[in-house]
Amino acid sequence: MKPGTGRVYLVGAGPGAPDLITVRAAQLLARANIVFHDALVHPDTVALAVNAETVAVGKRCGKHSTAQRFINKRLIDAAARFDTVVRLKGGDPMLFGRAQEEIDALRCAGVEVEVVPGVTAALAASAELGVALTRRGTSRSVTFVTPRVGDGEQAGDWTQCVINADCAALYMAAGQAREIAVRLIASGMRTDTPVVVVEDASLPTMTRTVLPLGRLGRAGTLALRGPAMILLGEVFRDVVAAVWPDSSMTSHEPLPEALSA
Amino acid sequence: MKPGTGRVYLVGAGPGAPDLITVRAAQLLARANIVFHDALVHPDTVALAVNAETVAVGKRCGKHSTAQRFINKRLIDAAARFDTVVRLKGGDPMLFGRAQEEIDALRCAGVEVEVVPGVTAALAASAELGVALTRRGTSRSVTFVTPRVGDGEQAGDWTQCVINADCAALYMAAGQAREIAVRLIASGMRTDTPVVVVEDASLPTMTRTVLPLGRLGRAGTLALRGPAMILLGEVFRDVVAAVWPDSSMTSHEPLPEALSA
Repeated sequence: MKPGTGRVYLVGAGPGAPDLITVRAAQLLARANIVFHDALVHPDTVALAVNAETVAVGKRCGKHSTAQRFINKRLIDAAARFDTVVRLKGGDPMLFGRAQEEIDALRCAGVEVEVVPGVTAALAASAELGVALTRRGTSRSVTFVTPRVGDGEQAGDWTQCVINADCAALYMAAGQAREIAVRLIASGMRTDTPVVVVEDASLPTMTRTVLPLGRLGRAGTLALRGPAMILLGEVFRDVVAAVWPDSSMTSHEPLPEALSA
Repeated sequence: MKPGTGRVYLVGAGPGAPDLITVRAAQLLARANIVFHDALVHPDTVALAVNAETVAVGKRCGKHSTAQRFINKRLIDAAARFDTVVRLKGGDPMLFGRAQEEIDALRCAGVEVEVVPGVTAALAASAELGVALTRRGTSRSVTFVTPRVGDGEQAGDWTQCVINADCAALYMAAGQAREIAVRLIASGMRTDTPVVVVEDASLPTMTRTVLPLGRLGRAGTLALRGPAMILLGEVFRDVVAAVWPDSSMTSHEPLPEALSA
């Protein structure tokens, strides 16, 4: 295949709020000829690409997801026709963004690729909550995971990864929140581990649900509309204690609904 | 104490390159009255605060570090005198930035605080290397840690946190690189685990040192000038194999210097 003449930029759109994109990313969008964006990227962010054709591809919680191989092909084709091709992804491209598949396909086709990092959702959630993920002396490790319940993938045991970290952010996890909680408790995590489920971090529609892990394992389905993540760790103890004063509840308690704060 | 009238913004400056700051952060700097910035923040980033008095505080690898309590007091005092006070921190404020101490002190003094997230160094390093930290099916967890060798802190065992993750980014770790490698190997991590030490991620002065973990444990002191992080995990195998074709080396090999690529 003849190498394309253009360059493809894999660009992080940030966590949601349009002004949480980087200056570099905004400048690239302004001069892009074509932009392939995740369906979940904010319309005002896509609108920064004033001179570009914009194409929604992939990743809306399973629906309307364009096959990865087809996205790769469109990027390669676009690089042959345009100078500046932007692949705009929610959050950061290199963290749960399937960027490697696109990078490998582009390089294999002789297309130059550059990656522009972005603010990842967990950091936006932490900022909105006003709770730092690390604390001097008591929280020195943070794990970002996409847990899968009940599959046989090659990746390491995510429960051990979460349990051994001082704080964890579980991406694309809220749909399986109950199963995840049950699995973590079965693996030895304390039922009073503080949990915050954050939906639409950084957007005006952001919600948070705070509860101890034991309750998450017994809660009904969380009423979530958009992408959500589960944060857990001792750093959230004060946040959870404000809503659940007796957060060291036992398993004898009645089963409440998850409380939205 | 009389509540201040101003608001304090804890703002992430991003990983180093001035254009990797968020649009929101750049706008806040432009209208700030006073900016307290980490010594390591890029001068061009600080210069975005065109109307502000700028004050360098703290955190240059131990030297010239202003005591945290004194920084807290200066922020509270500034909020009583100015509308818009910015505390500008490298990377993201909520990840290894001691933000909680400042948030708590400000809230305690009745000062409003808002946090603006930033791009953290590991994501910038990943972008520059062109290696995603996660891969579908094989790398689903990433741990960010500040390891401490040989102290008795309350935080969890960082070696278990690293070993159980598919990929890890060790912040503020390169000065202790050899001890960290020895500790990880003693805890059961494979000596052929791929390692990339990245210095000055996102800046023109960025360097990377690639080697298997076993060699890191036997290397001399890494020749580093600035802030550096250690990335490790199978996702870096190709990068390391390109430099060390026999990355499954045994402990019988001669002790080489760490190789800078």
